[in-house]
Amino acid sequence: MNIQLAIKQHQLELLFQQGSYGLEKESVRIWQNGELATTPHPHIFGNRRFHPYIQTDFAESQLELITPPNKTVHDTMRWLSAIHQIVLRTLPEDEYIFPFSMPPRLPNESQIQVAKLDNPADVAYREHLVEIYGKKKQMVSGIHYNFQISPEFIKQLHQISGQKESLVEFQNALYLKMTRNFLRYQWILVYLLAATPTVDAAYFRDGSPLKAGQYVRSLRTSRYGYVNEPEVVVSFDSLQEYVKTLEHWVSIGKLQAEKEFYSNARLRGANKARDLLASGIQYIEFRLFDLNPFEAYGMSEEDANFIHYFILLMLWLDEEGTQESVQLGKARLAEVALENPLTETKFKAEGVAMMDKLLAMLDSLHAPISVKNYAQSKREQFNDPSQTLCAKVVKAIEEVGSYEKLGTELAIKYKAQAMEHFFCLEAFANMELSTQTLMFDAIVKGLKVEILDEQDNFLKLQFAEHIEYVKNGNMTGKDSYIAPLIMENKVVTKKVLKTAGYNVPDSIEFTDPEVAKASFPLFFDKPMVIKPKSTNFGLGISIFQDGVKDKEDFAKAIDIAFREDKSVMVENYLTGTEYRFFVIGDKTLAVLLRVPANVEGDGEKTIRQLIEIKNDHPLRGDGKRTPLKKIVLGDIELLQLKAQGLTPDSIPAKGEIVQLRVNSNISSGGDSIDMTDIMHPSYKDIAVGITKALGAAVCGVDLIIPDYTQPATDSIHSWGVIEANFNPAMLIHIFPHHGTPRRVTRDVLEMLFPEMK
Amino acid sequence: MNIQLAIKQHQLELLFQQGSYGLEKESVRIWQNGELATTPHPHIFGNRRFHPYIQTDFAESQLELITPPNKTVHDTMRWLSAIHQIVLRTLPEDEYIFPFSMPPRLPNESQIQVAKLDNPADVAYREHLVEIYGKKKQMVSGIHYNFQISPEFIKQLHQISGQKESLVEFQNALYLKMTRNFLRYQWILVYLLAATPTVDAAYFRDGSPLKAGQYVRSLRTSRYGYVNEPEVVVSFDSLQEYVKTLEHWVSIGKLQAEKEFYSNARLRGANKARDLLASGIQYIEFRLFDLNPFEAYGMSEEDANFIHYFILLMLWLDEEGTQESVQLGKARLAEVALENPLTETKFKAEGVAMMDKLLAMLDSLHAPISVKNYAQSKREQFNDPSQTLCAKVVKAIEEVGSYEKLGTELAIKYKAQAMEHFFCLEAFANMELSTQTLMFDAIVKGLKVEILDEQDNFLKLQFAEHIEYVKNGNMTGKDSYIAPLIMENKVVTKKVLKTAGYNVPDSIEFTDPEVAKASFPLFFDKPMVIKPKSTNFGLGISIFQDGVKDKEDFAKAIDIAFREDKSVMVENYLTGTEYRFFVIGDKTLAVLLRVPANVEGDGEKTIRQLIEIKNDHPLRGDGKRTPLKKIVLGDIELLQLKAQGLTPDSIPAKGEIVQLRVNSNISSGGDSIDMTDIMHPSYKDIAVGITKALGAAVCGVDLIIPDYTQPATDSIHSWGVIEANFNPAMLIHIFPHHGTPRRVTRDVLEMLFPEMK
Repeated sequence: MNIQLAIKQHQLELLFQQGSYGLEKESVRIWQNGELATTPHPHIFGNRRFHPYIQTDFAESQLELITPPNKTVHDTMRWLSAIHQIVLRTLPEDEYIFPFSMPPRLPNESQIQVAKLDNPADVAYREHLVEIYGKKKQMVSGIHYNFQISPEFIKQLHQISGQKESLVEFQNALYLKMTRNFLRYQWILVYLLAATPTVDAAYFRDGSPLKAGQYVRSLRTSRYGYVNEPEVVVSFDSLQEYVKTLEHWVSIGKLQAEKEFYSNARLRGANKARDLLASGIQYIEFRLFDLNPFEAYGMSEEDANFIHYFILLMLWLDEEGTQESVQLGKARLAEVALENPLTETKFKAEGVAMMDKLLAMLDSLHAPISVKNYAQSKREQFNDPSQTLCAKVVKAIEEVGSYEKLGTELAIKYKAQAMEHFFCLEAFANMELSTQTLMFDAIVKGLKVEILDEQDNFLKLQFAEHIEYVKNGNMTGKDSYIAPLIMENKVVTKKVLKTAGYNVPDSIEFTDPEVAKASFPLFFDKPMVIKPKSTNFGLGISIFQDGVKDKEDFAKAIDIAFREDKSVMVENYLTGTEYRFFVIGDKTLAVLLRVPANVEGDGEKTIRQLIEIKNDHPLRGDGKRTPLKKIVLGDIELLQLKAQGLTPDSIPAKGEIVQLRVNSNISSGGDSIDMTDIMHPSYKDIAVGITKALGAAVCGVDLIIPDYTQPATDSIHSWGVIEANFNPAMLIHIFPHHGTPRRVTRDVLEMLFPEMK
Repeated sequence: MNIQLAIKQHQLELLFQQGSYGLEKESVRIWQNGELATTPHPHIFGNRRFHPYIQTDFAESQLELITPPNKTVHDTMRWLSAIHQIVLRTLPEDEYIFPFSMPPRLPNESQIQVAKLDNPADVAYREHLVEIYGKKKQMVSGIHYNFQISPEFIKQLHQISGQKESLVEFQNALYLKMTRNFLRYQWILVYLLAATPTVDAAYFRDGSPLKAGQYVRSLRTSRYGYVNEPEVVVSFDSLQEYVKTLEHWVSIGKLQAEKEFYSNARLRGANKARDLLASGIQYIEFRLFDLNPFEAYGMSEEDANFIHYFILLMLWLDEEGTQESVQLGKARLAEVALENPLTETKFKAEGVAMMDKLLAMLDSLHAPISVKNYAQSKREQFNDPSQTLCAKVVKAIEEVGSYEKLGTELAIKYKAQAMEHFFCLEAFANMELSTQTLMFDAIVKGLKVEILDEQDNFLKLQFAEHIEYVKNGNMTGKDSYIAPLIMENKVVTKKVLKTAGYNVPDSIEFTDPEVAKASFPLFFDKPMVIKPKSTNFGLGISIFQDGVKDKEDFAKAIDIAFREDKSVMVENYLTGTEYRFFVIGDKTLAVLLRVPANVEGDGEKTIRQLIEIKNDHPLRGDGKRTPLKKIVLGDIELLQLKAQGLTPDSIPAKGEIVQLRVNSNISSGGDSIDMTDIMHPSYKDIAVGITKALGAAVCGVDLIIPDYTQPATDSIHSWGVIEANFNPAMLIHIFPHHGTPRRVTRDVLEMLFPEMK
């Protein structure tokens, strides 16, 4: 069938451009001095037996970072970014990720440790590889690009074809065509994207074949890279042939296992090639790609998109390809890989012709203009080799002095970049920070993370067969449904807590202002809060901290409250300081004090300057994408200063605290201070009890405590609970302004997956 | 201390009027012919060992209905009404509640069965009462009024008093004063509220003491009523004296137990009188009150309020009362009880004087005007005895012929009234009908029900120590919190169900109208629904039932959907009929088909008339206070008729169904049809599986099924799930328009309290 015609006639352009994408990126850990880090794979990354994202490849020092498959290239790149940020922030302080495919300065082979995997067979296989290829060659890294054609596209095309072959056969034929053509034209991607022009001489067992100052396009994909012996030829003419030839090489011991067949395109979908006959080819693993050292994560999104369309072109082409063309392609690759990157390629004409076909296809598909422009710029690189990635790498190496030095400098820079916004995952910045932090911890731990709804901060976490769902960082299946319903209703919360014997401020609800005012005697001389039943932003609240003395004042407060709601609560005012207790199950994990926005004087700077300096802290920002909020010098703050006889230009004395707000909300620039270790344990027990009384698994309990150093008594003068929250903020504990950080997201994960502890 | 002065000076008027109120109402079951029903206490009312609301008193036929204590008289009356409606609707069809305190026509004593209680001691005690008083006297019924003074009032008064005695002693003194004064002036309430002027002669062991045609004010509180022998005098001078004298009568065997002391005011707060010395008197049980036969539930709210203020007056009076005054009061009561109800009372002057004191007190307290007016009208009754309740009862008896006949007529009328709105509890009509139904079932079952928040439909249910909370009828602690969060999010629901292997319509989300339109080929010729991601009231939805054929139509539908939301879903349209499956745990309890508003022709009436007749059904109303909604002849219905070439005045043929709506919502007049028994069980299993996949305990699953008689297959052409609801409607199953009602609220209770099964 003519695939181009079928797409055009049946308007399948969009479907053709859909698919699934996944990346597997190897790279080695190095020390600041550029040497391979010979430390073990960090224990914190959990067990490699199951870790879905952070693995080691051949060596203990060789990280393999794996994205889940995604429906868009963009999402795959986001995952690649997130996993990198997580790894970089979690590595020991003096460890970095080397950005080149070719290894850094290597120690003696004896110091390179083969990956310490649980499965003895895996270790034995690696020992075998050492024998055949040597440890140094094994340190070569790359990016594997997994691509699945949209199953719906295949289905529709199969229907259109009207051929008798089964859907699976049809699908296998498509994937084989794609693979053969890819192997035929892969040299083009090497010309455009290769980035391994050189390597340390010590890399070669028998001395470097490169002359001094000689650069090539891609050592990695050349015969000096990590490739099979040339005689190992596997046929892609049909799936049957593929299975037969591959099994042949294994049976005669030329390959230790099928996975030792290092083709630049691998047929995937089953563990054993033979099983593909039944299951069908599900996707192709393209293993051609050198790490791009100028990209923090090894590949740019533009290139990932470009590769996608290049692969599509392999399907789009009229030619079906044959095993002969595959062999031809491999030969060309071998030549191009060792060309001088600053010169034109021998096969320029074929390259330009293919790029024109690609551009024509992009036109036919109505592909995005950005993709077309990028493809056009790639086409230009056939005329101007200096614009190829490899040429740019050579230039940079020459500027810096050596590729090891360049690699080390870039590694240090990329780690610094990853540390900058250490509290978030930039690729997922549109989710709540707490969800980002939970994802961070889940990925470190080796839980499978799936984002079910990004806007809704809805995650699916999985370990083996065990699935848990999490919304907003800590809303989970561990809480019973009634707990949040109770907490959502302040009246019900109070009744439940009171019945359970906890100190709650007494309150009376009024729906008639006159009845409320006439009730003054009930409250005379007692400290009271008068507030609308549903209070928002503190509107309509009056506090009589020292007792309501005057009937008129009381009546005024009632009127103010009734302006905001049809129901008004008159509630006992508890004197003391408010603390937030973060509880999971049987334990108070964190206690926090929130302090109103303030600055501390140094006897030299103005209040305005002090605010600027305080705002400069990386934790402070808009309060959504940052754990703390910048202090604003707004009307309220100016009034507050005025009340103290100050202006923004006043210079407070050294050590003097200038308060800029009355309310202690973090959202108005307040400070968060961790008190977990100094809070008397009796209050932590009370917070746990309250959590249990509400039937909650995760709870933020607000207690008013006059003296946190004294043990709690039964009296409401010792403590009182004013609120319980079913989706308590976690960031304030994880990134406090002052005091010990409490990584409560980790506790949420331990609650959900106790078996991983 | 001068209590009046203290209240005035310290503005305690409001606090003084607060308190707790509870009612216990006895009455006997009768048959339609007016005879005592000798059937056992209905089994459905659960076990009397623990039932908090529905008990038996002396005899198996003598219901005792008990309200919980409430902070207002109004709430207490609501409970009294609700419990009555529940009992009346649950009694066997031919049983009624006799509205008089004096017994109806009684069978031989041998046929009156003593209450069959679990505890042998309780039965033995009743056998003893039979010996002393005879079974017939034991059938006398009344209302007991429990009143607790506001503890806060007592506390404040105690502080004000500055006396050395403890709070408990002070409290006991207050209650004793109240009791002594009440017993002194109780005759006034008998004059005003008594309603037992006569009784069947068979009631008396030794023949009636009443002459033919003679009426008295209150046989029940007279010596012919159910009272102790006159010599049993218990002192109210102090709590110590009370305990001492009461224990004396028991020790010498004059009383079998303390509870045999039938004082019109009993000190309450402990099981044994002696324990009151430590615990203090907590409340007083006033046992004086005859059933008011003109009130369906035995007492009017006005009278209940009046009694409250009369009791307060007993505290308010300057006089403290003595045991002598108690004896005087008892003597007056005995006289007044046997006065002719149509004549003035001998103690009119004292009565009027007390009523004036009451009115003065009401003025001082700024009591509501309605209370003052009512008290004023009661005062008038001392001048005009014909206005007393008892006189009115006499008049009615004379009109009807006998008090048994009057009682039977009223009993039948009250039951009919209670049946009228059989689907709701009128006193709690501001709550959701499903919550009312759940309360109904919980009360029948004997669960303790507490309304935590009426607006929010938030209940606390309790059996022994086991507490469960319920919101909106079926939101409980049995569901995990994540289940409703999943169901709230349609995208997440689909992903979870799809992963679990359930048939969901495929859908694609678009955020850009142009991209959506360009995707037309993806959907060409397939039945599709185009809808805004968050769909409200069906706005912006286009359905291409027979496949999208035209690109322009598709583009138009996309534009319409984008008018409603920033995200638009294009979803496969499933053909078939939608059924609602109501699932709890492992079982589909009900299956419902919703049919668009329609009428069935009879060949005579116009559509307008047919609608009127259909709307006349008691289940139809506004759809909030009724299970079904009346059909409205609005624009949409008229258009729908027009499309069929009809007008409201068309006369459809006999049996012809005229559809008035396209949508099948109950809220637009649709019919609900129970399909539980005829739905193929395979679909019920699927609904259970879906519920489990979502982690839900209670779930409403909407399945599209083309043929419910065929077993389900794996294909989406056999069935598909389009929605799951975490707070599914229950009323539609409990009160269907057609088919077997499914009382799913009972299943909710069984889920919550499996131990009561």
